Amino acid sequence: MSWFQFVVKVYYDMPRVEEKRLMKALEDEGFEVKPFNVTREPLPIGGVEDHIALIRAVSMFRSLYTAAVLEANGITPINSSFTIIYSGDKILTYSVLAANSIPIPKTVISLNGDSTIKAYLQIGFPLVDKPPIGSWGRLVSLIRDWHEANIVIEHRSMMNNPQMKAHIVQEYVEMPEHRDIRCFVVGGNCLGCIYRIPKEGEWRSNVALGADVVKLDESTEACELAVKAAEALKGEVVSIDLFERKDGLVVNEVNGVPEFKGFMRATGIDVAKEVAKYVKEKLKK
Amino acid sequence: MSWFQFVVKVYYDMPRVEEKRLMKALEDEGFEVKPFNVTREPLPIGGVEDHIALIRAVSMFRSLYTAAVLEANGITPINSSFTIIYSGDKILTYSVLAANSIPIPKTVISLNGDSTIKAYLQIGFPLVDKPPIGSWGRLVSLIRDWHEANIVIEHRSMMNNPQMKAHIVQEYVEMPEHRDIRCFVVGGNCLGCIYRIPKEGEWRSNVALGADVVKLDESTEACELAVKAAEALKGEVVSIDLFERKDGLVVNEVNGVPEFKGFMRATGIDVAKEVAKYVKEKLKK
Amino acid sequence: MSWFQFVVKVYYDMPRVEEKRLMKALEDEGFEVKPFNVTREPLPIGGVEDHIALIRAVSMFRSLYTAAVLEANGITPINSSFTIIYSGDKILTYSVLAANSIPIPKTVISLNGDSTIKAYLQIGFPLVDKPPIGSWGRLVSLIRDWHEANIVIEHRSMMNNPQMKAHIVQEYVEMPEHRDIRCFVVGGNCLGCIYRIPKEGEWRSNVALGADVVKLDESTEACELAVKAAEALKGEVVSIDLFERKDGLVVNEVNGVPEFKGFMRATGIDVAKEVAKYVKEKLKK
Amino acid sequence: MSWFQFVVKVYYDMPRVEEKRLMKALEDEGFEVKPFNVTREPLPIGGVEDHIALIRAVSMFRSLYTAAVLEANGITPINSSFTIIYSGDKILTYSVLAANSIPIPKTVISLNGDSTIKAYLQIGFPLVDKPPIGSWGRLVSLIRDWHEANIVIEHRSMMNNPQMKAHIVQEYVEMPEHRDIRCFVVGGNCLGCIYRIPKEGEWRSNVALGADVVKLDESTEACELAVKAAEALKGEVVSIDLFERKDGLVVNEVNGVPEFKGFMRATGIDVAKEVAKYVKEKLKK
Ligand SMILES: Nc1ncnc2c1ncn2[C@@H]1O[C@H](COP(=O)(O)OP(=O)(O)O)[C@@H](O)[C@H]1O
Ligand SMILES: Nc1ncnc2c1ncn2[C@@H]1O[C@H](COP(=O)(O)OP(=O)(O)O)[C@@H](O)[C@H]1O
Ligand SMILES: Nc1ncnc2c1ncn2[C@@H]1O[C@H](COP(=O)(O)OP(=O)(O)O)[C@@H](O)[C@H]1O
Ligand SMILES: Nc1ncnc2c1ncn2[C@@H]1O[C@H](COP(=O)(O)OP(=O)(O)O)[C@@H](O)[C@H]1O
Repeated sequence: MSWFQFVVKVYYDMPRVEEKRLMKALEDEGFEVKPFNVTREPLPIGGVEDHIALIRAVSMFRSLYTAAVLEANGITPINSSFTIIYSGDKILTYSVLAANSIPIPKTVISLNGDSTIKAYLQIGFPLVDKPPIGSWGRLVSLIRDWHEANIVIEHRSMMNNPQMKAHIVQEYVEMPEHRDIRCFVVGGNCLGCIYRIPKEGEWRSNVALGADVVKLDESTEACELAVKAAEALKGEVVSIDLFERKDGLVVNEVNGVPEFKGFMRATGIDVAKEVAKYVKEKLKK
Repeated sequence: MSWFQFVVKVYYDMPRVEEKRLMKALEDEGFEVKPFNVTREPLPIGGVEDHIALIRAVSMFRSLYTAAVLEANGITPINSSFTIIYSGDKILTYSVLAANSIPIPKTVISLNGDSTIKAYLQIGFPLVDKPPIGSWGRLVSLIRDWHEANIVIEHRSMMNNPQMKAHIVQEYVEMPEHRDIRCFVVGGNCLGCIYRIPKEGEWRSNVALGADVVKLDESTEACELAVKAAEALKGEVVSIDLFERKDGLVVNEVNGVPEFKGFMRATGIDVAKEVAKYVKEKLKK
Repeated sequence: MSWFQFVVKVYYDMPRVEEKRLMKALEDEGFEVKPFNVTREPLPIGGVEDHIALIRAVSMFRSLYTAAVLEANGITPINSSFTIIYSGDKILTYSVLAANSIPIPKTVISLNGDSTIKAYLQIGFPLVDKPPIGSWGRLVSLIRDWHEANIVIEHRSMMNNPQMKAHIVQEYVEMPEHRDIRCFVVGGNCLGCIYRIPKEGEWRSNVALGADVVKLDESTEACELAVKAAEALKGEVVSIDLFERKDGLVVNEVNGVPEFKGFMRATGIDVAKEVAKYVKEKLKK
Repeated sequence: MSWFQFVVKVYYDMPRVEEKRLMKALEDEGFEVKPFNVTREPLPIGGVEDHIALIRAVSMFRSLYTAAVLEANGITPINSSFTIIYSGDKILTYSVLAANSIPIPKTVISLNGDSTIKAYLQIGFPLVDKPPIGSWGRLVSLIRDWHEANIVIEHRSMMNNPQMKAHIVQEYVEMPEHRDIRCFVVGGNCLGCIYRIPKEGEWRSNVALGADVVKLDESTEACELAVKAAEALKGEVVSIDLFERKDGLVVNEVNGVPEFKGFMRATGIDVAKEVAKYVKEKLKK
């Protein structure tokens, strides 16, 4: 069977620009593309026929469970369940990165309210506290003193989800204009990087919080680190967020189901096409 | 440095009989034992000195995060973060087992209410529905008809935790007296197996729900499957739950932070001692 | 100042057919109508100028808080905060009805899992269990035996909202075709009643669950009871749900922010106009 | 029947010092006292025999539902369901107080995240934001700038309880040493008042947060306002919290199931005895 007869299923929950672009690009490369809404159809363990699987659900757990079921059926989804859960949970991400000697912000984990105070003492103000699960900057808190510390600890302790009770306590990495760097890595190749520059009055560089995106002209160093991070997380199609710390770049995050609208806009790179081409290359081997 | 100079830290949140037994047994083997309450002390990523780590927190996420942070620090905890998350989440467990050709109950995953109805149609009544996260039989529901199906779907849809919205829909495996089989595997060796027999009026065989425990005299077959399951999950110290299906044994669960009070009572096997001996053997290599 | 110079504010969160109809009808009666989105604008305590207030937020708590703040400002909203909270919480409703010697289904309240078993024993199967807060039939469960009892008790115990931990345990009132009766009362006058007939396979008569609506030709008796219930709850514009028990009618529910689309369809009565006329009459006094 | 033959039931969930004291004092006055654990026994609507009821559950909703069921049965509990819900929900409390022309802190209610920003603009920093339900100072936040505002709004929006989405936005009332005043009112009589002085580093005067208690020598003015507040809430046995604002006292809170351990310690007043005597007086009438 030649590659162009292959079926690619795109597993989604809410179709974003990204999913539409990916489907179009895969078709352009000659694949037969089938969208699969994971909220509509159940996923049987066993008995699924061979296909290429792109995991694209917005909900991390939906992506994770879809990837896992596919793996049960002998399929190697892009990305794997390992990549999705280890990049989807920030404590796991930082741990894998550190285990692979990749620099990260100075980080202390606390598993409930009491020990959080000790974690704050170890890091010192200003510090960043965030829960392991979440996106778009949600609940990522810059804490400047004990007054703010108390607010965050109290509010978090009232959330019932066990993951919300865990605190990632970090040094606050001061960056020029609060901007961070996002690189896109496909199959071990770095497509390029962008700056994400927070909007006025916001310290977090999430596009969902109004950040601007600007292409990085010189991205060699960032790309090098991003590729290492992607490798550590075994990610085939991932974006990686980096911080410029005074002593060099550190990795803050790996996205296992990456959005790329902003990246495309800033760089002009057709990410969907690169992914489709990567899928084709992979098949040929 | 000879093995007896090694420090073993036992990471716990609520000290149960199991943790106390383990600490005693480790001391008896000559280790220096240090209990570590993960709710009291924060866990820094990086900078931890070498030691042997036993992960024993009741809360799955606390165990997971502790293991991950230790791995970041170059330590190989017993069990690893991989074993804890993949055995702690039932969808991931079933997927890894199936991917390794280990028989499991017929299972369909549904990621929200709508597709759950389809999953029920695929499995047929009576069926079992359970969420991916949970212990002690909690929310594991035997559903006999659409009336009960509606009750479960409605109640689950009102829970806010994203994992609670996922449904594991399974064939109901009819077992003699509803009993299941639990085996204990340490370092690839099966210590033995027990039956767990539900109390009158309960169909689930959880000891927390009043089940009785009885030693399995002939456990060769069960042990063989248990060892395979432990291997698939890369578990060093795990218990494995099996069901006797008409066509043979299937694996239902792997416990990455296993309780063993009931197992000890039924078999007379000193699990804690076996674990301590395993730790020693491992070190010698 | 003559009545037609009065401003009527309609407080809403999601504008339904009902709110649109009400605004139109009030304008037709000559009022100046101002919609007020309670999710967009804050509500100051004190300093609000005089107006007529119709409370129409879908969320019970939003309606309640809006009514309360208006009362703080000397306004008498339709309905009052008392009517909204006492009809919005089913335990409070049943209590007020019973205190006013209005017949209700045989009911036992249990405040957590343990005592729920005793409540079930007091009522006997089949029985109905429902939480105090909720609409559209959600979580209203018909329980036929201990197996179903366990499912409901376990699921409810996992919900974190304190109100979800309370159980209203009731005799199951067998009705012809499972239909119940809904009457509409405005300013102490009963506009009429309808049957709500559940769709095939559903025992609950909620329109949101697919029920059909049919006009009641002879509604004298139902209306009489409905007016008494409205009075007990001090409701100016309310709908009342009744069950036909073998020994006569019993009141199941009072809706303090009533929907009336189905009622209009079945009876041809222009509820919005009746409400507008009532507001005008009230002002004249 | 003479008063001393009367049964007094004390409805509780967790027996605190207060409940034990009350039972002892009631016995000393000659009553037959029966403790009733509302988490163990269900509460049938109808058919309860006459008795005096003291509502003392720590959980506001348990107290509320117990009082309501008793009222259904013709009993007048101390306190009534009206007092418990209107004092147990801070938005309802402030509204009733304001409706009765009792001074309160300047307050704006917002029913979700968006309008909260407008509410903050109306009040200005520093301000206090708190949810309507809660005790012991939990989630009561002093907000000094937009950075802290964002933290609170984001965290609250992630809580699923509908009441947690409502914001009470208030002027921050600066008080000497951050102390507030608590008075105790029984049957319309003010027993006295205390200062609650926050511990070092804490701005909230909750005893649960380490505050100290000191008797108020001159409490005439405070008592006068407290009695009015008790009356507005129809509370028979209540404590009232007051703030010393520059222009005079304002009422912050009414407690419908009041704790009084701290009050006793500071004033030497035997609150339980006063309550028991009040119950006896009431019966004589
Ligand atoms: N330790 C930190 N130092 C400085 N800025 C940080 C730090 N952590 C997070 N941020 C800022 O907050 C944003 C969101 O944090 P992040 O950890 O990426 O969470 P999310 O996955 O929700 O985007 C980052 O893009 C960055 O701008
Ligand atoms: N598919 C099934 N068929 C029959 N019994 C089952 C099935 N799934 C679960 N059970 C019963 O319910 C118990 C609890 O289920 P399990 O999946 O082990 O969850 P938990 O981790 O909470 O114990 C099992 O030990 C078994 O007795
Ligand atoms: N005790 C009962 N006996 C029989 N049917 C009931 C009983 N309670 C509820 N129902 C059915 O369930 C429907 C929904 O219950 P209800 O208490 O009205 O809750 P909701 O406010 O969510 O509609 C009712 O309209 C009725 O059809
Ligand atoms: N508007 C305010 N100004 C100043 N202090 C306040 C204000 N609101 C609350 N506080 C402080 O916070 C404490 C707790 O707030 P309160 O509204 O009484 O909630 P709780 O019922 O949880 O005690 C108060 O006792 C007081 O010390």
